[in-house]
Amino acid sequence: MKYVPVSQLGERPLISMLSNIFHELPDGIILGAGADDCAVIDINESSYLVVTTDMLHRMTDFPTRMSPWQIGWMSAAVNLSDIAAMGARPMGVLAAFGLPRDTDVAFVEEIARGMRDCARECDTAVIGGDIDTHDELTICGTALGTVPKGHLLKRNGAQVGDKLCVTGYAGSAGAALYSLENEIDAPDSVLKALFEPVPRIREAMALASLGYLTSMMDTSDGIAMSLYDLSKASGVGFRLEEETLPLQPEVEELMSYDRVTLNSMALYTGGDFELIFTVRPEGIEEVLKMGNISVIGEVLPHERSISIQKSDGTVLQVERKGYEQLKIADNT
Amino acid sequence: MKYVPVSQLGERPLISMLSNIFHELPDGIILGAGADDCAVIDINESSYLVVTTDMLHRMTDFPTRMSPWQIGWMSAAVNLSDIAAMGARPMGVLAAFGLPRDTDVAFVEEIARGMRDCARECDTAVIGGDIDTHDELTICGTALGTVPKGHLLKRNGAQVGDKLCVTGYAGSAGAALYSLENEIDAPDSVLKALFEPVPRIREAMALASLGYLTSMMDTSDGIAMSLYDLSKASGVGFRLEEETLPLQPEVEELMSYDRVTLNSMALYTGGDFELIFTVRPEGIEEVLKMGNISVIGEVLPHERSISIQKSDGTVLQVERKGYEQLKIADNT
Repeated sequence: MKYVPVSQLGERPLISMLSNIFHELPDGIILGAGADDCAVIDINESSYLVVTTDMLHRMTDFPTRMSPWQIGWMSAAVNLSDIAAMGARPMGVLAAFGLPRDTDVAFVEEIARGMRDCARECDTAVIGGDIDTHDELTICGTALGTVPKGHLLKRNGAQVGDKLCVTGYAGSAGAALYSLENEIDAPDSVLKALFEPVPRIREAMALASLGYLTSMMDTSDGIAMSLYDLSKASGVGFRLEEETLPLQPEVEELMSYDRVTLNSMALYTGGDFELIFTVRPEGIEEVLKMGNISVIGEVLPHERSISIQKSDGTVLQVERKGYEQLKIADNT
Repeated sequence: MKYVPVSQLGERPLISMLSNIFHELPDGIILGAGADDCAVIDINESSYLVVTTDMLHRMTDFPTRMSPWQIGWMSAAVNLSDIAAMGARPMGVLAAFGLPRDTDVAFVEEIARGMRDCARECDTAVIGGDIDTHDELTICGTALGTVPKGHLLKRNGAQVGDKLCVTGYAGSAGAALYSLENEIDAPDSVLKALFEPVPRIREAMALASLGYLTSMMDTSDGIAMSLYDLSKASGVGFRLEEETLPLQPEVEELMSYDRVTLNSMALYTGGDFELIFTVRPEGIEEVLKMGNISVIGEVLPHERSISIQKSDGTVLQVERKGYEQLKIADNT
């Protein structure tokens, strides 16, 4: 067979390939590999168990300015955000640590405290793990959660006419990364978005319990990439309105000299760990009452693809780009 | 604070340190970090959920002679063996892949098939995962299982007077590794013990359902190390009889020129993924009816420590050594 490096294939096609190999699901598995943020398992009459795993490591995921406490926080947060994306209540986090032999014990302690504190913030705890020797600091987290059967939110339920919403701000983590890479002084509130994202557990559970949401995922790969994922799963298109994208005031100030880059950040940069979801029109008022939520567009038929209306009225295609593993050059 | 590298502290003290940080457990968590092969969660009236995670990587865990299919098999097996150790039925496996960018897609496919086939062998499936870029091939598996509440087996129930048993053979994986390192030709049946260990899921569930077992774990770190873990958890000592250690006939033949090394392998080498467990005396007959099980000793009071009676009648202390992460030199 011809040699094809995984970097040429890219993350999402590789996930599809793996999903094909792992397609046989035993009884009780409602949703398996590759389809959503979590696998979903039927565990009792009233609830589903959701479970997810995510591997982070020094070079890609932990910028040098990140403290060990923040490394731990992040390692728990990425997994708990996937639990939130299903509308579930966290039940526990597991942590497998791959440690270089010369790692300071105090550094590991700080990582553990960061994980513990993020888990606490989400009303859960680190309940197990593993320690290995590794050349590069690698932390693989696993998070478990439960969700009442009627509250489970997947990527595949968006309907034409639904409103598209996000929690919090878009592009803050991207702006923080940009400022670090370009040696621009960013305020702590922006850096925190990148280094200490707070999984939207409470918001997600509250939203799921309202009964108006039709699909949800997190924005960890960026809004554009999330929309392509929702589009594929639900068989729908989206129209965004650029001026409704929620920008953090400090980020607007930081990037005020370059509005084009700012708008691009809000769409195409990952790391925000907010929720993106679709809402049946009759429920939008009640959803917005929760606060810290923006309507950024609506659901269209699939053939309308994914587009964004600029403030001058022009409509552009949203590109399929954002945070994606394996790729050397971005884009597919 | 003074710099102490993790390699100086060692795996088990580091686990204790982490367990202290993670000691607060939310409601419903029966057993948390560091205490056993799995964390244990109360999920419904009749069953516990057990969950475990294990990180493997190229340099430590995948010898160059291992095929990609075997790499996948192994990555599922180490986790499913932890599920077996609790007496549980597997419910699913998750796999986080850290892949070098130049990894051949066909190689990843073979790894996935190996994981799938090991999961199938254990009547379960790969139900989720994650893909990341990594310099070194790293696979972090997570396995879930359920166990009727009355069947849960932990490390802490061994009682003085119980019989100590193991499934299968002791030291086969160690003998295979030894033969590879010393360029001795080993038969496939021995190499398979190292490269394709079969998690003892069915045996464990059958044993747990008998109701006579008081503690159990797997022998992945070697029999000696497992006994020190059981000793610590249960507050007991052990006396082994060397001539009852079950040796694979092909291994006896392979190592016939060096009986001392062979006996040491049976005790101190890891990688076998058999079950080691204690049985109330009145149940031993029924347990042995299952076949492929050996009585290798008995449970003594804690102050008697862990010893082995050689075939000439002399009694030696069993050393606390075996497979342990982080250590540069073995032993503590």
